[in-house]
Amino acid sequence: MPKTMELSLPEVRRELHKYPEAGWKEFRTTALVAEELDTRGYTLHLGADALNTDERLGVPSDDEIQRARDRALDEGAPEKYLAEMGDTTGLVAEKTFGDGSGPVVGVRVDMDALEMTEASDPEHRPAADGFASRHPNEMHACGHDGHTTIGIGIARALAAVNTVSGTVYLFFQPAEEGGRGGYPMSKTDLISDVDYMLALHLGLGNETGTVIAGYDRPLSNSKVDVTFSGKPAHAGNAPNEGQNALHAATTAIQNLYGIPRHEDGITRVNVGQVHSPNAQNVISDCAEMRVEVRGETAAINEYMSDSVRRIIRHAAGMHNVEYDMSLYGKTTSFTADDEIVSEVAAAARSCDSVTTVVDRDQIGASEDASYLIKRVQATGGKGTYIGIGASNPSGHHTSTFDFDEEALDVGVQVVVQTLHRIMNAD
Amino acid sequence: MPKTMELSLPEVRRELHKYPEAGWKEFRTTALVAEELDTRGYTLHLGADALNTDERLGVPSDDEIQRARDRALDEGAPEKYLAEMGDTTGLVAEKTFGDGSGPVVGVRVDMDALEMTEASDPEHRPAADGFASRHPNEMHACGHDGHTTIGIGIARALAAVNTVSGTVYLFFQPAEEGGRGGYPMSKTDLISDVDYMLALHLGLGNETGTVIAGYDRPLSNSKVDVTFSGKPAHAGNAPNEGQNALHAATTAIQNLYGIPRHEDGITRVNVGQVHSPNAQNVISDCAEMRVEVRGETAAINEYMSDSVRRIIRHAAGMHNVEYDMSLYGKTTSFTADDEIVSEVAAAARSCDSVTTVVDRDQIGASEDASYLIKRVQATGGKGTYIGIGASNPSGHHTSTFDFDEEALDVGVQVVVQTLHRIMNAD
Amino acid sequence: MPKTMELSLPEVRRELHKYPEAGWKEFRTTALVAEELDTRGYTLHLGADALNTDERLGVPSDDEIQRARDRALDEGAPEKYLAEMGDTTGLVAEKTFGDGSGPVVGVRVDMDALEMTEASDPEHRPAADGFASRHPNEMHACGHDGHTTIGIGIARALAAVNTVSGTVYLFFQPAEEGGRGGYPMSKTDLISDVDYMLALHLGLGNETGTVIAGYDRPLSNSKVDVTFSGKPAHAGNAPNEGQNALHAATTAIQNLYGIPRHEDGITRVNVGQVHSPNAQNVISDCAEMRVEVRGETAAINEYMSDSVRRIIRHAAGMHNVEYDMSLYGKTTSFTADDEIVSEVAAAARSCDSVTTVVDRDQIGASEDASYLIKRVQATGGKGTYIGIGASNPSGHHTSTFDFDEEALDVGVQVVVQTLHRIMNAD
Amino acid sequence: MPKTMELSLPEVRRELHKYPEAGWKEFRTTALVAEELDTRGYTLHLGADALNTDERLGVPSDDEIQRARDRALDEGAPEKYLAEMGDTTGLVAEKTFGDGSGPVVGVRVDMDALEMTEASDPEHRPAADGFASRHPNEMHACGHDGHTTIGIGIARALAAVNTVSGTVYLFFQPAEEGGRGGYPMSKTDLISDVDYMLALHLGLGNETGTVIAGYDRPLSNSKVDVTFSGKPAHAGNAPNEGQNALHAATTAIQNLYGIPRHEDGITRVNVGQVHSPNAQNVISDCAEMRVEVRGETAAINEYMSDSVRRIIRHAAGMHNVEYDMSLYGKTTSFTADDEIVSEVAAAARSCDSVTTVVDRDQIGASEDASYLIKRVQATGGKGTYIGIGASNPSGHHTSTFDFDEEALDVGVQVVVQTLHRIMNAD
Repeated sequence: MPKTMELSLPEVRRELHKYPEAGWKEFRTTALVAEELDTRGYTLHLGADALNTDERLGVPSDDEIQRARDRALDEGAPEKYLAEMGDTTGLVAEKTFGDGSGPVVGVRVDMDALEMTEASDPEHRPAADGFASRHPNEMHACGHDGHTTIGIGIARALAAVNTVSGTVYLFFQPAEEGGRGGYPMSKTDLISDVDYMLALHLGLGNETGTVIAGYDRPLSNSKVDVTFSGKPAHAGNAPNEGQNALHAATTAIQNLYGIPRHEDGITRVNVGQVHSPNAQNVISDCAEMRVEVRGETAAINEYMSDSVRRIIRHAAGMHNVEYDMSLYGKTTSFTADDEIVSEVAAAARSCDSVTTVVDRDQIGASEDASYLIKRVQATGGKGTYIGIGASNPSGHHTSTFDFDEEALDVGVQVVVQTLHRIMNAD
Repeated sequence: MPKTMELSLPEVRRELHKYPEAGWKEFRTTALVAEELDTRGYTLHLGADALNTDERLGVPSDDEIQRARDRALDEGAPEKYLAEMGDTTGLVAEKTFGDGSGPVVGVRVDMDALEMTEASDPEHRPAADGFASRHPNEMHACGHDGHTTIGIGIARALAAVNTVSGTVYLFFQPAEEGGRGGYPMSKTDLISDVDYMLALHLGLGNETGTVIAGYDRPLSNSKVDVTFSGKPAHAGNAPNEGQNALHAATTAIQNLYGIPRHEDGITRVNVGQVHSPNAQNVISDCAEMRVEVRGETAAINEYMSDSVRRIIRHAAGMHNVEYDMSLYGKTTSFTADDEIVSEVAAAARSCDSVTTVVDRDQIGASEDASYLIKRVQATGGKGTYIGIGASNPSGHHTSTFDFDEEALDVGVQVVVQTLHRIMNAD
Repeated sequence: MPKTMELSLPEVRRELHKYPEAGWKEFRTTALVAEELDTRGYTLHLGADALNTDERLGVPSDDEIQRARDRALDEGAPEKYLAEMGDTTGLVAEKTFGDGSGPVVGVRVDMDALEMTEASDPEHRPAADGFASRHPNEMHACGHDGHTTIGIGIARALAAVNTVSGTVYLFFQPAEEGGRGGYPMSKTDLISDVDYMLALHLGLGNETGTVIAGYDRPLSNSKVDVTFSGKPAHAGNAPNEGQNALHAATTAIQNLYGIPRHEDGITRVNVGQVHSPNAQNVISDCAEMRVEVRGETAAINEYMSDSVRRIIRHAAGMHNVEYDMSLYGKTTSFTADDEIVSEVAAAARSCDSVTTVVDRDQIGASEDASYLIKRVQATGGKGTYIGIGASNPSGHHTSTFDFDEEALDVGVQVVVQTLHRIMNAD
Repeated sequence: MPKTMELSLPEVRRELHKYPEAGWKEFRTTALVAEELDTRGYTLHLGADALNTDERLGVPSDDEIQRARDRALDEGAPEKYLAEMGDTTGLVAEKTFGDGSGPVVGVRVDMDALEMTEASDPEHRPAADGFASRHPNEMHACGHDGHTTIGIGIARALAAVNTVSGTVYLFFQPAEEGGRGGYPMSKTDLISDVDYMLALHLGLGNETGTVIAGYDRPLSNSKVDVTFSGKPAHAGNAPNEGQNALHAATTAIQNLYGIPRHEDGITRVNVGQVHSPNAQNVISDCAEMRVEVRGETAAINEYMSDSVRRIIRHAAGMHNVEYDMSLYGKTTSFTADDEIVSEVAAAARSCDSVTTVVDRDQIGASEDASYLIKRVQATGGKGTYIGIGASNPSGHHTSTFDFDEEALDVGVQVVVQTLHRIMNAD
């Protein structure tokens, strides 16, 4: 395989799109980024140096991690960087510009794919053009391949200029899906001096050419893994001797979807990945499920989480089964700062590729860049989340997701122009 | 591995127990039985010659079949018999005794394992003694390893006598679990001349030394596979755009367990193998489940099946999703014939190893030997199902199931004595 | 209104049918029976003398009792007997025959109606012939009007003979529906000397002329009243501030119907009288329901009752509401004694009006005469429950229930003939 | 009882509070208002003259209407106005001021109570001060007694001034709860010439002294009455023969609460007044319930209503029962007009009793004044809904609701000052 150095940004994106890696498995992606940024003179903080491994959430089993690492090697990931990473994906790349007297700026992009299978339909461009996912049940269906590419694009663009002063940290975050990587990445010293934190997302319903400078107030979010453990029994001979874990799970699900709406704002609840592996003639002794709730504020999210805990506990008790709950991931909410929002808006307006600039909008979804932004805000820094419009034919998280690659340059330009404004060396 | 010829019956049983094969995957088991019976002078009808392949139910995917076949080869199954079997497991072994003027008798044993993982607990004898299952998620937890062994024991015993007259067909049936192999095995010409059909089961709550001569009226049973197909959507951004297959499934399950009891007799309902693979932040677009119902009579079973169909249809409609239902397996009911029941009872009373003989009892569970017995009864033949007590420490279909191997000889003796009575050459 | 003395049995039945009284409200019925039996020389034990008032179950509010008593007065109940009854319905009538040296025999009939509205359809004979219920939401839909009439018929017939010896207690039991009156009636001294206890039921699917001499093994039964108490809130402004009692109740109901069937025998579960009175725009703060379970044995019934308690508790917990449960009624099971069953069968065979005698059958339903029979059996007495066939066009507990009045004489004759056999003065 | 003429506004409010009348039963309230306004020179349009009776929603049975009318008479309602009203409550009072050349202004207040029982707790001021509801299950728990009182106060204040010009219509609307009276009141000619439409509400979480001049965008709302009709059967003998209406209803309710949230805005769903009157031992043949949904826009409300219809239909089908749905009430949404909002805000700022003026806020709840305002807007008129703060110790629609009576004067002053501004005769 080619080095990314030799590829245009759309080519980089397609290379990443072909080999999507789900959360905490981004070995190949991290290694490819590391290789290019190393060459371009950035200092690399890899794996356990990029984030606080004790604070990681929703980490797959050791077995799965090893299989993902082996796969990355098979698929051409440079061994040197794999070795430095160990078992932990993620990268922070640091570089100081000019006399270094300017501000410290963080730019965060995410790298992980979703666990779903990409469409093979010939009307789906990645399939038609041969860059659809080679990995069953993994797919870049939310544009993170594009975000990583924009991160590389920013690194390239900065490397070529000499008109800014200060230090840039590029956060290549693993495991954004599920809200698992942002929290541990916010818990390192690398972020402690950051004055401005920028994060970005492609698409989200905005056409190419549109930029939202202050895309904020994401929903707070909690993801919980639940296992109900009962007792098997022969469903024909002795149904009464079972303790039905599946029946508990279905009672829970019916009631989870019915958690009351909240007077103070948006709520969401969903259940994913339900598995109960028993045969038809055996009363279910095990049912696993993943639950997600969201709230417009952290308080509403807490109300939802409390309700989940109460429902799970009593669904188990009702069917006389045991249960176990563990946190899989989480995000919080934040408000973008006017000071940096206006800089982004001005930068966007200065870009030819930008046709529409929206100063502020509510993002709707959840986002664990929230932890990085709140960490910076906690010490007086400023942060915003930038929406980079990207026309796309079908919704995020669907098997035919794709996006207009023109948006890659838009993303690079808007961020680089913003950095020029806030890190102006003059 | 040793040939079964060289093993005692308990050793045969343990060899089979170590390599359990789920329904339609009994390649190694069938091949080992074939090898010994071939040597002992039985005519073999293998695979597509043993049953009507068009009538098979609940057959795994071609891929799974091939993997099972490859595994059997790896684990020492004689290649010759695998080749004769093709992709279809199952065996009917035929032998004529004396002048052949006596009756035609069928004896049916089943060979398949359950899809569950055996306990590794040192208090579980198969684990302690090193013959626990080598196959994750496959286990002989219902004693079919013992049934197959008894079939071999009968073949051995008969081969050594010259005091019976007539023809014996030994039916080594695949896929009894789920009620998938009995029906197609009843649909061949091999069974058309059978005058007496005997089937048997170990354990079922009876201690070693107890024999039930007429164990009958099993529950009728229908197994249905259901898939709900909806539309995914981002659970945070657009929950209303999803069509929630999992929500449909849980509504169905809650109501399936609530199908009203029936005035005319026993009903059962259970749901197994529920899978909904979506991520937490995606509305479920697919939920699969396996449903089983039973009724004390075929009519009650039909009432249950009708209810299942109605519930599934409307659960889908309620959540605006599509659904697909297909029959996975089935059994029917039968009543044992007094004429053969009294012969079995007399034979049992003549065995030293038998301490208690119960003439008749209701079996409670479901059993697809019912199709073989009813087929024989339809042309004027007689049939019964024999309970062979076998002390065992924990229930059928549990991960610590085991049984007293003394019962193997009891089973062989009771059947062989019965054959002596009804095939008496004098 | 006429005195019952002046009426034929069918006329008595229709008079009772017109004025049905639900459980613990049988003031008019009790008083009319008392009046006739008083005249015929029976010693009366009324109200608190007929049963142990401390053990009564499911008693309506004082208000309802008073309204029922006032209504009875309005509708012609003789004031004298109302006064003796006080607030408690029910009557035991005692009379000694011959030299009194014979056995003590109890005959139990029940008097209460169901809380349902009778059909006014002209094809419904009581409507067409003008004897349909005058009481909205009360109806003799289970034939207790007939049972009371048979009790009067027995009293009349016995009064006219002089060929028996011993003492007869006629138990006119209130509140059989719901299993509320049998238990307290079994807890008095009146029953302590009874040697033989007979009870009977009309219909139950048997045609006129059929008699079942030993109709037994009724289902054990528990009835529980449940109230969920939550907190109201405006459903539009603050749904999250409510604690939804109705949501708890529906979760409970869905799961009650799903209590697993039992390996050892019949189970039943039903929910009745659900009320949640809140307006649509208020979160429900109160939901009341009545639950009934049955089991083929007392142990199975206990399994069902335990499941109900567990489900209710956790449905409440799940929705953060309080709950209250109280026993509304109960019945137990019993087996009829061969000694008395054979006497009843012989007596029935001697009656011209009887065409078919079934020695024994299982009754299927629940019956609180079980407590009286078990009490007698506990001290060495014998008991049975007699089925008196009565052709009827539609099922028990339906709004068009009626029965063939020819059966009244059959009932009287079978019991009187039985008494002649066991109390033979010779 | 005293005439309201002789009472202060707080005394009027307490008189109304004592005799609350639920929707379409406001006979006494309407008659008392009519009496005073008649005396004060207003032209009265009563009953069928005040609204379009063909368009009424959720009208109680004739029987209930008659009982309410009889009760009003018993409780001192002047017979003359009762006679004019006929069976229809509601009043529009009209008066022309000055030379009549000014604008036509409508002021709408509502009069109905809720169906709930008022607290008798001595800490509840209406109970302590003796003006709690005399009517079980009816209570002014939303302040409509105050609204009617403010309507009278406005009429009194206007009668005393001679500085305005134009015509005032005072709409005393029945049946606001449930959204039943606003729609038919918007369908008369009386409203066709109105230039400005004002409506108001006390409390809603705002303290006394606060005024919201443009309180708008109420949730759209649909209320649907549902009846499931099944077939009864004996729950012990023949549970399979029933068609369980209650089971259908609980399945529906569980799923109604689970209707997915909507990406475009607020949704609400609630179920009220569930009744299933069957005995415990009878399978439910009838279950009635009232469902309410809301949406931030008419489109979202339609999405909710569609979901309700689908769920009801399939819950019925799943349990093999029939169903019937009918519209009970409805409201729509509207946006207040800047022109009139700024007049109200200015008027409020001119009042001494007002401490805080909020120009605009979203009302959150639903309101059928929306139909009157939209009707006026449709012909070019302007409308707003005014929030009149009123400190109150507990939430609307709770049994201890009360409000600070100081707010009555605030309401009168704000409206009268607004009328002075827009009907200035100068």
